[in-house]
Amino acid sequence: MPSAEILAIGTELLLGHVLDTNSQYLSDELARIGIDCYYHTTVGDNRTRVKKALAQALSRSEILLTSGGLGPTPDDLTMECIAEVLGVPMIMDDEVLKYIREFFTQRGIVMPEVNAKQALRPEGADLLPNPGGTAPGIIWKLTPEQLKAAGILKSEDSGEAESSFERNRYILTFPGVPSELRRMWRETGSKFLQSTVVGASIYSIELKHYGIGESALAEMYRDLLDGSNPTVAPYAGQGECRLRVTAKADSVDDAWKLVAPVADHIKHRSGDLCYGTDDDTLESVVGKLLCDENWKIALAESCTGGLVSKRLTDIAGSSKFVSLNLVTYSNEAKVDMLGVSQGLLDVHGAVSAECAEAMAEGVRRVARADIGIGITGIAGPDGGTPDKPVGLVYIGLAAKGYYCGRMLKLGDRLSRTEIRHRTANEALNMVRLFMIDRPASVSAPRVK
Amino acid sequence: MPSAEILAIGTELLLGHVLDTNSQYLSDELARIGIDCYYHTTVGDNRTRVKKALAQALSRSEILLTSGGLGPTPDDLTMECIAEVLGVPMIMDDEVLKYIREFFTQRGIVMPEVNAKQALRPEGADLLPNPGGTAPGIIWKLTPEQLKAAGILKSEDSGEAESSFERNRYILTFPGVPSELRRMWRETGSKFLQSTVVGASIYSIELKHYGIGESALAEMYRDLLDGSNPTVAPYAGQGECRLRVTAKADSVDDAWKLVAPVADHIKHRSGDLCYGTDDDTLESVVGKLLCDENWKIALAESCTGGLVSKRLTDIAGSSKFVSLNLVTYSNEAKVDMLGVSQGLLDVHGAVSAECAEAMAEGVRRVARADIGIGITGIAGPDGGTPDKPVGLVYIGLAAKGYYCGRMLKLGDRLSRTEIRHRTANEALNMVRLFMIDRPASVSAPRVK
Repeated sequence: MPSAEILAIGTELLLGHVLDTNSQYLSDELARIGIDCYYHTTVGDNRTRVKKALAQALSRSEILLTSGGLGPTPDDLTMECIAEVLGVPMIMDDEVLKYIREFFTQRGIVMPEVNAKQALRPEGADLLPNPGGTAPGIIWKLTPEQLKAAGILKSEDSGEAESSFERNRYILTFPGVPSELRRMWRETGSKFLQSTVVGASIYSIELKHYGIGESALAEMYRDLLDGSNPTVAPYAGQGECRLRVTAKADSVDDAWKLVAPVADHIKHRSGDLCYGTDDDTLESVVGKLLCDENWKIALAESCTGGLVSKRLTDIAGSSKFVSLNLVTYSNEAKVDMLGVSQGLLDVHGAVSAECAEAMAEGVRRVARADIGIGITGIAGPDGGTPDKPVGLVYIGLAAKGYYCGRMLKLGDRLSRTEIRHRTANEALNMVRLFMIDRPASVSAPRVK
Repeated sequence: MPSAEILAIGTELLLGHVLDTNSQYLSDELARIGIDCYYHTTVGDNRTRVKKALAQALSRSEILLTSGGLGPTPDDLTMECIAEVLGVPMIMDDEVLKYIREFFTQRGIVMPEVNAKQALRPEGADLLPNPGGTAPGIIWKLTPEQLKAAGILKSEDSGEAESSFERNRYILTFPGVPSELRRMWRETGSKFLQSTVVGASIYSIELKHYGIGESALAEMYRDLLDGSNPTVAPYAGQGECRLRVTAKADSVDDAWKLVAPVADHIKHRSGDLCYGTDDDTLESVVGKLLCDENWKIALAESCTGGLVSKRLTDIAGSSKFVSLNLVTYSNEAKVDMLGVSQGLLDVHGAVSAECAEAMAEGVRRVARADIGIGITGIAGPDGGTPDKPVGLVYIGLAAKGYYCGRMLKLGDRLSRTEIRHRTANEALNMVRLFMIDRPASVSAPRVK
């Protein structure tokens, strides 16, 4: 299996001003196409240390991905340092220069002369186009001879190499701007490595699960986890689990043909536990289900304070399924706006199954929506009592002729943020399950 | 200035399953106490590579901070590898073992025997207590002689060293769990390095600004940026800027005495541009202002979809100043719930200064709040027109006898998320400025 490493370049990373999310993204992507990543390194905008780090990476790994240092200022050293380490001059690419000039012209700006620097690259390196910005990268295939001539590969027995000395090495450089890096990876970098280094095309899909833990999921699919093409592997994080199915073949189409039946099998076997794939989120799936069936939802949130509303409206086009959400923090607002009865609050309190139900019914009626959600609980850190501890949450879902409630006991060891996040997940998942599995008797939405 | 580097250990980081936030946190903290950080490195749970990375770090930097690899499983190799690299045995600390046993007992669990491993540490290393978990770390002062004996420091002229061979070196190990790492840093690690390596106590404060760019802020404080004790440095990120004032002295108190007058001077000179310090956020500052004066706020959000409500209720105790917020996405909801007139919507449209004002007034009345906020705009990516492009946002703030409106043109190059985030910042800042500078004629809140 080819080995890679990632070098992030930028003093702002070492000062802690910027969080490096690029290395995580690239690592995840490398894993998806079957390339092992053994090191992440970060260095500042310092010529000596950048060159040292480049030479070390090239001496031990077959593939080096760099991020950052491609800007127009004197601090941006990545290209120069690569050229120096390999002992080649920098050359100007007139096509790239023209592209950069046009990039500015289209925005009504004359290109500052410093930006001409971004059209320079080490002689022999190919262009890695950046359709989203002025900092293109390079893709450079280096032979063992080139690396030996540059003094980077010294001897087989240095004990440093993760990869054979007989193989070619590859440098791919990306800018530090995450959106540009990701697009360049997707459109060029990933495909190049698949065809050139992996020698096969990779297709992978993630099947996202909610409502089952990582070990239970691994147990459930024990029979599949030993497969080799496709491979199936479980991952966990943020209160949800994923199964990744990956196959290798001569073409992406052929790889897809290996993945598809296994993915279908998992979707079938997991049933409602599997809520989507890849970039799907609970909110995007819920949004799609509501849109497709022309249902409208209304939320009455107390302890989540607008988080569920915020997540649902993160989805572009959410005005199609959200008309009105309420954050009714006070008892007064629950009574006034949602018609929760003062008697109910006196007897059961605001954090109760009864109140969640009244909130859900109330907001559905007020907003004239098809589904009403009521959420009430204690997000902490204060406000807990022995009877109603921090982490106790009630969620209600009301539709015409239908009601379903849930109680969560999330415990007081979670942070306020985590309690709110998990509550929102659970509420969104309740809507998802309702939309998929609701009884036939539950009315179709009113004609809009 | 002493030099440090950070080594993160864990295969989950190299697979991209987990985002490393620890290295950023520690880098920021090192900068605060005047220690330069030159490298971040990440390696997996692999004995050979962990040992190589440790030896390289110790050969070139005075201070090595590690995160991860302190768990009880065979994959957790940090302590063993450190002991091997330094050529010392591991010893059992009976006090620590007792602490770990009690940690489990208090939670009603018998300690699994594997956890005994977490009481082992390299002979000669001191304990770095972990009050939040079962994985303590070490603080280890290593003399040049120890490092030479272990073969880590070979010769002065290797060209690798960032730090003199004549000085002691220090290893501090932390678990990978961010909350445990941060607490151990604050309570022990930072103080140790200040007293031992920096040879002085450091006090620093960040003055957070909103409404001014980084370069304008740097220009405004040019006279202070060249100072040496305290130093003043500008930082930017997430649509806001910070000035950090840092001083060094024999005691934290003395350092504070150097910082305080400069911080006061900046607060005075920046006036309303400076909204708080250190962990303050726009929402926490707004929450405090509202609480202190017993004012209640109500929000009517359209394009932000609940984000401002979510941020305000992120603050524990927000029920004191939030009673009711509305997300009125549809025109229908704006009319029904807020009393926005259909005529106004017909003439001006929902994205208009007039609608923002009607929403602000409406929600203030409906919620019987002291302040009403109305937010309406086009967050994109769709829905823009030549007249009303993506990124056009109107925000209104209504109080008794007072109204103030703002228009933002955020442009269509920002993402939906970014447009929503900046809109929320601006709305929160409007509330902040109102609470600080409102005309004397604006009524005090109704008696609660």
